[in-house]
Amino acid sequence: MNKNIHTFIGCDDEYEESKIVIFGAPFDGTTSYRPGARFAPSHMRNESYGIESYSPYLDLDLEDIKVFDGGDLELSLGNTKKALNTIKNYIDRLLKDGKFPIMIGGEHLVTLGAVSAFINHYPNLHIIHFDAHADLRDTYMGEKLSHATVMRRCWELVGDNRIFQFGIRSGDREELYWGKDHVFINKFNFAGIERLGGRIKDSPIYLTIDLDIIDPSEFPGTGTPEAGGVTFKELLEAIWKLDSLNIVGIDMVELSPIYDPSGISTALACKLLREVILQWGKGK
Amino acid sequence: MNKNIHTFIGCDDEYEESKIVIFGAPFDGTTSYRPGARFAPSHMRNESYGIESYSPYLDLDLEDIKVFDGGDLELSLGNTKKALNTIKNYIDRLLKDGKFPIMIGGEHLVTLGAVSAFINHYPNLHIIHFDAHADLRDTYMGEKLSHATVMRRCWELVGDNRIFQFGIRSGDREELYWGKDHVFINKFNFAGIERLGGRIKDSPIYLTIDLDIIDPSEFPGTGTPEAGGVTFKELLEAIWKLDSLNIVGIDMVELSPIYDPSGISTALACKLLREVILQWGKGK
Amino acid sequence: MNKNIHTFIGCDDEYEESKIVIFGAPFDGTTSYRPGARFAPSHMRNESYGIESYSPYLDLDLEDIKVFDGGDLELSLGNTKKALNTIKNYIDRLLKDGKFPIMIGGEHLVTLGAVSAFINHYPNLHIIHFDAHADLRDTYMGEKLSHATVMRRCWELVGDNRIFQFGIRSGDREELYWGKDHVFINKFNFAGIERLGGRIKDSPIYLTIDLDIIDPSEFPGTGTPEAGGVTFKELLEAIWKLDSLNIVGIDMVELSPIYDPSGISTALACKLLREVILQWGKGK
Amino acid sequence: MNKNIHTFIGCDDEYEESKIVIFGAPFDGTTSYRPGARFAPSHMRNESYGIESYSPYLDLDLEDIKVFDGGDLELSLGNTKKALNTIKNYIDRLLKDGKFPIMIGGEHLVTLGAVSAFINHYPNLHIIHFDAHADLRDTYMGEKLSHATVMRRCWELVGDNRIFQFGIRSGDREELYWGKDHVFINKFNFAGIERLGGRIKDSPIYLTIDLDIIDPSEFPGTGTPEAGGVTFKELLEAIWKLDSLNIVGIDMVELSPIYDPSGISTALACKLLREVILQWGKGK
Amino acid sequence: MNKNIHTFIGCDDEYEESKIVIFGAPFDGTTSYRPGARFAPSHMRNESYGIESYSPYLDLDLEDIKVFDGGDLELSLGNTKKALNTIKNYIDRLLKDGKFPIMIGGEHLVTLGAVSAFINHYPNLHIIHFDAHADLRDTYMGEKLSHATVMRRCWELVGDNRIFQFGIRSGDREELYWGKDHVFINKFNFAGIERLGGRIKDSPIYLTIDLDIIDPSEFPGTGTPEAGGVTFKELLEAIWKLDSLNIVGIDMVELSPIYDPSGISTALACKLLREVILQWGKGK
Amino acid sequence: MNKNIHTFIGCDDEYEESKIVIFGAPFDGTTSYRPGARFAPSHMRNESYGIESYSPYLDLDLEDIKVFDGGDLELSLGNTKKALNTIKNYIDRLLKDGKFPIMIGGEHLVTLGAVSAFINHYPNLHIIHFDAHADLRDTYMGEKLSHATVMRRCWELVGDNRIFQFGIRSGDREELYWGKDHVFINKFNFAGIERLGGRIKDSPIYLTIDLDIIDPSEFPGTGTPEAGGVTFKELLEAIWKLDSLNIVGIDMVELSPIYDPSGISTALACKLLREVILQWGKGK
Repeated sequence: MNKNIHTFIGCDDEYEESKIVIFGAPFDGTTSYRPGARFAPSHMRNESYGIESYSPYLDLDLEDIKVFDGGDLELSLGNTKKALNTIKNYIDRLLKDGKFPIMIGGEHLVTLGAVSAFINHYPNLHIIHFDAHADLRDTYMGEKLSHATVMRRCWELVGDNRIFQFGIRSGDREELYWGKDHVFINKFNFAGIERLGGRIKDSPIYLTIDLDIIDPSEFPGTGTPEAGGVTFKELLEAIWKLDSLNIVGIDMVELSPIYDPSGISTALACKLLREVILQWGKGK
Repeated sequence: MNKNIHTFIGCDDEYEESKIVIFGAPFDGTTSYRPGARFAPSHMRNESYGIESYSPYLDLDLEDIKVFDGGDLELSLGNTKKALNTIKNYIDRLLKDGKFPIMIGGEHLVTLGAVSAFINHYPNLHIIHFDAHADLRDTYMGEKLSHATVMRRCWELVGDNRIFQFGIRSGDREELYWGKDHVFINKFNFAGIERLGGRIKDSPIYLTIDLDIIDPSEFPGTGTPEAGGVTFKELLEAIWKLDSLNIVGIDMVELSPIYDPSGISTALACKLLREVILQWGKGK
Repeated sequence: MNKNIHTFIGCDDEYEESKIVIFGAPFDGTTSYRPGARFAPSHMRNESYGIESYSPYLDLDLEDIKVFDGGDLELSLGNTKKALNTIKNYIDRLLKDGKFPIMIGGEHLVTLGAVSAFINHYPNLHIIHFDAHADLRDTYMGEKLSHATVMRRCWELVGDNRIFQFGIRSGDREELYWGKDHVFINKFNFAGIERLGGRIKDSPIYLTIDLDIIDPSEFPGTGTPEAGGVTFKELLEAIWKLDSLNIVGIDMVELSPIYDPSGISTALACKLLREVILQWGKGK
Repeated sequence: MNKNIHTFIGCDDEYEESKIVIFGAPFDGTTSYRPGARFAPSHMRNESYGIESYSPYLDLDLEDIKVFDGGDLELSLGNTKKALNTIKNYIDRLLKDGKFPIMIGGEHLVTLGAVSAFINHYPNLHIIHFDAHADLRDTYMGEKLSHATVMRRCWELVGDNRIFQFGIRSGDREELYWGKDHVFINKFNFAGIERLGGRIKDSPIYLTIDLDIIDPSEFPGTGTPEAGGVTFKELLEAIWKLDSLNIVGIDMVELSPIYDPSGISTALACKLLREVILQWGKGK
Repeated sequence: MNKNIHTFIGCDDEYEESKIVIFGAPFDGTTSYRPGARFAPSHMRNESYGIESYSPYLDLDLEDIKVFDGGDLELSLGNTKKALNTIKNYIDRLLKDGKFPIMIGGEHLVTLGAVSAFINHYPNLHIIHFDAHADLRDTYMGEKLSHATVMRRCWELVGDNRIFQFGIRSGDREELYWGKDHVFINKFNFAGIERLGGRIKDSPIYLTIDLDIIDPSEFPGTGTPEAGGVTFKELLEAIWKLDSLNIVGIDMVELSPIYDPSGISTALACKLLREVILQWGKGK
Repeated sequence: MNKNIHTFIGCDDEYEESKIVIFGAPFDGTTSYRPGARFAPSHMRNESYGIESYSPYLDLDLEDIKVFDGGDLELSLGNTKKALNTIKNYIDRLLKDGKFPIMIGGEHLVTLGAVSAFINHYPNLHIIHFDAHADLRDTYMGEKLSHATVMRRCWELVGDNRIFQFGIRSGDREELYWGKDHVFINKFNFAGIERLGGRIKDSPIYLTIDLDIIDPSEFPGTGTPEAGGVTFKELLEAIWKLDSLNIVGIDMVELSPIYDPSGISTALACKLLREVILQWGKGK
């Protein structure tokens, strides 16, 4: 008899045959306000069976695409550096094996582990960053490694004018002023996203989606809900506009099931993950 | 002293004097994912006292209209066929008595019980179907009778081109492809609903409203929340556009109070029921 | 060592140096349906540390403005008159000291205590009223003092054509008909708000914001959720349009944390309070 | 067709034929801490269908006893005196009609309305009081009428040595010291309850059960949970020991469904109500 | 890379090498009151990582015992007979393979599927039944197959005096009177359980544990909470007293995670499952 | 006007005049399973106004005792060592000032910060440890600093036979076997606690109370609920038995308000804190 395999819906293929690899990074050790993102990836696996594997938006089905679900990494909550290193090493292997990684957080700091791996494979890496928060502080509560500093750390790896932020509607004054000189910030919405192709069409791009970019009405289950966000439909359309770009890896972070008593945030995240897998897996 | 009568707000008239009859069909026996629709009608009665009987949209008041609330049917949860038969027989009597039935589900399968009764009284019955899900599968988990097959079963009763679906944003590939040949499907929204009058103006029409057509932000309390839905305002406007049609009966299904911790879904459903009663009861 | 001071974020200045004074009025004694507004002000203080003190909308920071947080008044829940009197006396002192009061309810009836104080200082007082409900009944459940009668009582103090209501989408027929002759009512939204300047530009204006004007999807945590409301963005824009008016005091009422299991309502209220403080505190 | 009658399970008899009358007193207007007792009686009706009408403790069935459920009184939340008067008048009529009243609160202050009626019919009235709190303050937050003063007000009606308290484990020092001279207080448990028969065997006795006497582990859904309470089994045994006394009326108060997310408090209260009805209704 | 295996803690051994096999039966299709038992087995797997694999009660560790976790059966919610047949066939195979089955419900009706398999292998089967409810009705709401009739159906398979019930504290009068003649019923607690050895020492025994036997204070998360239950410690001691009996299979049913907001019911169920596995797996 | 001071009920005295100092250590950075202990101390302050300042157990009142509430320390969630150092330094100052510290966690690791300070002032320090878990691992998930290793780290500071554990009912085999040689472990309950006086009567003793020693029925709101715990009454009696010992400091840890939807855990913790303050503050 077979053991109980537990994957995201439609993602039960073997590693070797899969181009897309999804995995969980259940770390929320620096979350300063409302914790729980650690529970996101396993919770999404459970709840993914409430959605269909077929997308009426794209007329594609997860059944048509080979996806391997690697489960959750074992990440030490009290030791931030070690956790980031575990992520880095895992993605490193995926990239060496020619996979397209999709990481499910966890808090946003896990992106640093990912970018640390990608930058080695793609020295010219660019980052598209969807988020309510700029995450550009140099330190937060005295720490260099924090969900609130993650894009600053990423900037240290990729350099000026390589990070493109959309949807930002929260930050402290200093980081936002600093950001004007070092990254592209589009506040509140996705205005101008269709022009990205002209600028970075062929560059390798890492896409990091902090789900709190979505309005709390549609996505209450997150650590720091910020009123005035984008809708799921707007987010979907923004993602479609990235279709011609050279995306090489993706993460989705900051779902906290603890603060999602009705379950709608998890259901949305599952649906978004399906769309993301289908969009970038369709030709692979 | 009088006994404790428990009705939806403003619906405390006698059966004989009422044209409109509302009743509950508390069945969710085939719900495969998140149960609880069984609790919807009684919960709506309780919570209906949080809204007003007067509608500022229509400038009408439930006090002006005679409505009888028949309470909840006793439906066997383990015996699907019997439950559907109980619904059919009840509506059969209402139609014989010349009433306008409004049924409160329960899961969507209860619509099959209703349509089985209506088709006998109106052989030319058409169905307008608001829903996030197509519900057009032939079988689901091996079963013919399921919330996911209910419109396929209804199609077997009414035939090709009699079902008009709006808002559909979820389904498996097979059912959606099948649907193209047998029913009218408008995906995602209410586009084209104003043209229904030209096609089926005088035909008797059953209107079935699966409340999960509404976006989960406004209506989290349902079994299968699907991001990307319509708003309450859009739904209301769509309903206004049906005003000139020959609607002969209505249901509202798939509210699950279990997944509505803030109560906003139930409050919305109560308000929608008020608007529906006022719109179709105003001339009666 | 210092004691544990507990204030809304960025509002820890001394009374003497502050122009803006915020305080809580934790009273919900006449709430007929879903209670809990009593918990709003202290809950907002706790949760305010989840937002930033800086506003990317206004490019202003609470750190730049002197604000005193007076804590919560001690209000007797069983004795409505006494509670209103306590509010009146407190605001009276603030006005004598030249402060700009911002009161956090509590239920909407607390506005009557405030207006009773303001009318003495500003005999020509006008009221701008954002709300889902007209609150214009003469009595409610036999009582003169109620959340459902508060604007009628305020009308008795300020007189005809001094109250401007926006967003109203619920009421009984009688109060809404009465209102047509005595107050300005704009149903459902903020249409026409930009024309207020022409009518009451120099008059002293009290702004009362019943947070249930916001759609329940964005603000579920309130006593009487009414589908079909305005968005946070629309509310913010409406407030910006009041910038040139002579606002002399503000309240925000009807957040009930009990019905806000995900916390998004409280987070929104905190953000709105920040924006309100910044907008009216920026020149002071 | 019959209207939707809504009663506690097994309590659907006519008024005239019933000796026992149960009714709800949905008032919590003076609750200073956690509200919601207003919702208790209607919530108990809904949930009572989760228990059986038969008691394996007493080998009796509600089907054997005639009980009328009068529904909920309409009580003004903002006007404490009027609410108490409504209760008094209702019970007054029940007593004139020879009924045995069982009142479901609401907060504990409703007991004062009841005792005000009983004292007229039974000048020699005694009170047995089960509670975590002494409720013997003269005033609370400046008010004479409060859930925290209710037994002091009752004492003013019945006089010294007529009140017998059990289970008390909370109070302020002053009220507990005062109580030593005026009432019988047994702290923490039911010790000595079997000796009541010798003291007040033939006197008419009103039994008031504040459900927060039960340990919060078994009964979390109450306004002021106090660790260290009695168990359901101990409470049941205590009630059995009152069987030979001349109980003339009963109330059960302080269930707050808002704070009972798992539903166990409501279920316990329903079961206790069944046992109380059966015990005092069996010979009637 | 390995796929994501998801098992109860410490139960990740291969089928062939394991004597103990645990699996989920996620069916609650006849649950008449509060649903959700369908979610129990997968929820227990998730939460089992909050307990230790070592038992300080037995000084044994799951690491020492070979246990295979077969995952959840696919059971049709709308088709009761088919679901029971799926269970029967699965257990049939386990018994043929010489395994010791431990089934995690699901509602109590799943026991009928299990007993239908065991009776073929053990014609002399006895049943020990821990429960708050007798479950001895002949029909419930008109149905033969129901959580409320399951032990009656089992009785039809095993015959008179083969069923031993403990902890029963709820039922209708008829079933309890019937039960006196056909099964052994010990109401309320485990009195006399130590004498079972003398009666049925060598007979093959199926042990079915309806978790609602535990007091709702310790186990709120169940469909029909009944005040006055046994404690976890008492249940553990009762189980120890069965150690010398010839138990051939076990089930644990009626955990409903929906009604377990604090998670303590699931945690208790996990711990109990660990103890049960250790006790009966220790010599195997 | 005074600022808004926020303290535990009855603890609003000045630092200089107070012998007892309470403060919060809102750290849960190594919590591996269910987080939220970070919210405990501020939540307890809020909810403490639901209890009385008077204890009917001790006939003492917080009003009689001088207690300073120092608020919450600012602890870095991502930097465990720094957080522990902050705690150590704060307590160090309290001890130098001759205060009796009572620390409110936070997770159990905060105890290490405290013991690090106490051991300097009391080289002969002993520790009494109430807990469900032994917390004696050398490492946990590869880390030396963890809630699961805290007593091992403390043992490194105080040495063999200085730690006395009560109530332990969970751990891995290795730590419990190790513990037999190095600390005193009384499993499951408080047996033998009255004999502590004979062994360590005059030694300085630090008392650490992990609240999960209490049964989850009474205390669900904790990170790792373990069925089979002690009751509040048993805990209180155990504490009374320590009255003659030379307790020099105390902590209470592991309340997680996130998992306490009914609020009973927080209410219990507040009551226990009151009793602890009164018992050790009465002579000071």
